[in-house]
Amino acid sequence: MTALDLTTDVVTLTRALVDLPSESGAEQRIADAVETALRALPHLTVDRIGNSVVARTTLGRSERALLAGHLDTVPAAGNLPSRLDGGRVHGLGACDMKGGVAVALRIAATVTEPVRDLTYVFYECEEVEGERNGLARIGAAHPELLEEAGLAILMEPSDAGVEAGCQGILTADVVVEGARAHTARAWQGVNAAHKAARVLQRLDEHTPERVVVDGLEYREGLSAVAVRAGVAGNVVPDECVVTVNCRFAPSRSPEEAEAYVRGLFPEYEVRVTEVVAGALPRLDRVGDLIAALGAESRPKLGWTDVARFAALGVPALNYGPGDPSLAHTAGEYVPVEHLQQCEERLRRWLR
Amino acid sequence: MTALDLTTDVVTLTRALVDLPSESGAEQRIADAVETALRALPHLTVDRIGNSVVARTTLGRSERALLAGHLDTVPAAGNLPSRLDGGRVHGLGACDMKGGVAVALRIAATVTEPVRDLTYVFYECEEVEGERNGLARIGAAHPELLEEAGLAILMEPSDAGVEAGCQGILTADVVVEGARAHTARAWQGVNAAHKAARVLQRLDEHTPERVVVDGLEYREGLSAVAVRAGVAGNVVPDECVVTVNCRFAPSRSPEEAEAYVRGLFPEYEVRVTEVVAGALPRLDRVGDLIAALGAESRPKLGWTDVARFAALGVPALNYGPGDPSLAHTAGEYVPVEHLQQCEERLRRWLR
Repeated sequence: MTALDLTTDVVTLTRALVDLPSESGAEQRIADAVETALRALPHLTVDRIGNSVVARTTLGRSERALLAGHLDTVPAAGNLPSRLDGGRVHGLGACDMKGGVAVALRIAATVTEPVRDLTYVFYECEEVEGERNGLARIGAAHPELLEEAGLAILMEPSDAGVEAGCQGILTADVVVEGARAHTARAWQGVNAAHKAARVLQRLDEHTPERVVVDGLEYREGLSAVAVRAGVAGNVVPDECVVTVNCRFAPSRSPEEAEAYVRGLFPEYEVRVTEVVAGALPRLDRVGDLIAALGAESRPKLGWTDVARFAALGVPALNYGPGDPSLAHTAGEYVPVEHLQQCEERLRRWLR
Repeated sequence: MTALDLTTDVVTLTRALVDLPSESGAEQRIADAVETALRALPHLTVDRIGNSVVARTTLGRSERALLAGHLDTVPAAGNLPSRLDGGRVHGLGACDMKGGVAVALRIAATVTEPVRDLTYVFYECEEVEGERNGLARIGAAHPELLEEAGLAILMEPSDAGVEAGCQGILTADVVVEGARAHTARAWQGVNAAHKAARVLQRLDEHTPERVVVDGLEYREGLSAVAVRAGVAGNVVPDECVVTVNCRFAPSRSPEEAEAYVRGLFPEYEVRVTEVVAGALPRLDRVGDLIAALGAESRPKLGWTDVARFAALGVPALNYGPGDPSLAHTAGEYVPVEHLQQCEERLRRWLR
């Protein structure tokens, strides 16, 4: 088994993690390595749940914080093994998010007497469908492991700044109906694709709102992400489905988001296929942490697992090394400066 | 081998043909049966070309007419074997177009001394892509077999009336381009699906022309038959392709049809994927035949192989038993009355 040396520096540790392939569903080897390394630390108690690992200090502090990161990556894209070049660690998952995992592991190994108790969660299957998500599975089977924390830091790439809260997501199919006919007698039918012009025009003209929560501006979005129509080359299509993806501010509930989208298309059937709540920034609870980290604070527009913590009542924020726009790209990398800064600032907050 | 008895009545012969399965590409058995039956007739000379059969009288008449029908069918749909019920022959291909083939075979067998020389063409693979079409292959390899005819009667179902000429077909992809972005930052991209509203709206508002040729009104059509956009559920699509199917009057050339469609979408890339000419009705050449048949004359809006004859300079019309709207349906049938009427009227014209 590959051993992880947590006494090494964060850059070497990041590279070691990148060189342990862990595509979603194949995290056993990396989870074994992480579990073994953490069990060797006498100040931590360790639980293994599937291919996720939870480690805790039990110092009886009045506060408890949680550091979390996923172990899996998207499939490789010719970007293995890792390499260090120009102050950057390149390679699969360097940015999303083995750099963040390395920072958390370094804290776990070196901050043996933190001023607040700590829970570390390293989990599987973040890059795939929600029901496989390791954090969700821990939350379902052992919610107390997450709920006992007063706040959570999700170490997703955020340019070593704080991204607070996150927007919710709603996906819905807007169904435009028509009537089939042979195209040689098109007037005998009703072309659903032609009628879909109204739906697409409405989306094109729609101006999403900008919602300010705790001083942070969440810019919403409403996009057609797919259009599907077509029966055969000589048939007037009787159905055109426009799939709409809505990103909504965390101050809106899923129910409000659904009513909003349905209200835009009152004359069509709207089939909601996915709706997940966002997470409020909760600066009342995480403001001190942000100040202590000395990091710039921005609203998180994409959805992340901070929403899972929010759903359990645990205020959470994104704080991690790496440019989030590089996630899932073949050329992803994480700056050494980010790795070192995140480790240093977290250590300062915990000592 | 199954033998075909051409001395039997047209209804029995239609049923025998239906009961000889001949899905496109599997016409050997039916072609063998047709070839054998025709070779037994001393007044005909017979050629076999692939699984197509050509038979000719050589009486030295001043005129020559051609009767044509395809031997293949679409796949079965639980509609075998044939059955006779309520004055209709039911079963796979009864309408499209073994009824028409039976009529032509009956003429071939019984009109031994026609007033005009006759060429019979029974061909393979009409229901599949054009390059496999038996008539096209004969036209390419032995054009003289078709070109020597002064006119052609394609016995496709036309309700025992005459459908003159046929419209042309143009299929084109109208490509709407945008720029990708994550849907959480949709404003950084350009949504091609939203922009496609203009294309679909233009199609919806477009009124196709009605073009009168030789007194027959060809009603044109312009239909979106497919719309495709979609990269992933969280990505603003950078391309939306609208596939447009145009049916154009036979008085327009393919080049004119292409210019017409391109002219409707000048600001988009238009990729023409298919364009085939129609066929002029040529009532100057087929008017006497129509009068002799005593059949009602209508414009043919769908494309048929009459266009292949027209391309070779042979005026052609559709005249055959069966309702064309039943073609390719599981419940297709051909009325006994149509079979008998078509046989009787053709025989009258030839004696």
